[in-house]
Amino acid sequence: MTDLQIEIIGLIAATFTTIAFIPQVHKICKKRDASGVSITMYVIMFIGICIWLCYGILIDSIAVITANGVSGILQMFIIIFAFIHRKKN
Amino acid sequence: MTDLQIEIIGLIAATFTTIAFIPQVHKICKKRDASGVSITMYVIMFIGICIWLCYGILIDSIAVITANGVSGILQMFIIIFAFIHRKKN
Repeated sequence: MTDLQIEIIGLIAATFTTIAFIPQVHKICKKRDASGVSITMYVIMFIGICIWLCYGILIDSIAVITANGVSGILQMFIIIFAFIHRKKN
Repeated sequence: MTDLQIEIIGLIAATFTTIAFIPQVHKICKKRDASGVSITMYVIMFIGICIWLCYGILIDSIAVITANGVSGILQMFIIIFAFIHRKKN
């Protein structure tokens, strides 16, 4: 299997695990409510994603970098929205 | 940076992103209720995790294999429990 084929498999995996968070972001946007979201879970995950990003850069994996870059942005959005919501209420 | 050091960084990342799912599993176990869980999200994520596992094996990354192996088991538990719960009610 070539490196390109392997990276494509990684990118398919990245697409699935990133897409999985979109329903949560959509739900928060639509309801303008993040009270059902566990901030602790997303903060722990966000820290992990940042370290994954460093790991991806170190092992030169486009799939790992892309997956964690996009997921990191989505997670950051969920965390910021959850904080704003908590302050308002 | 040595390969071992890079793998350690990956394993730290894996620990964070895996630990993040534990509060969800704990909540389901304690309440014996998974009605608040989006099965679609976890099924999409489970498919992605299985592909990540193949990718980890192909690029020989202990961190990617460990992270997705453990997360896969946790996600499978959430999905099975959510299905059982839905059938009972």
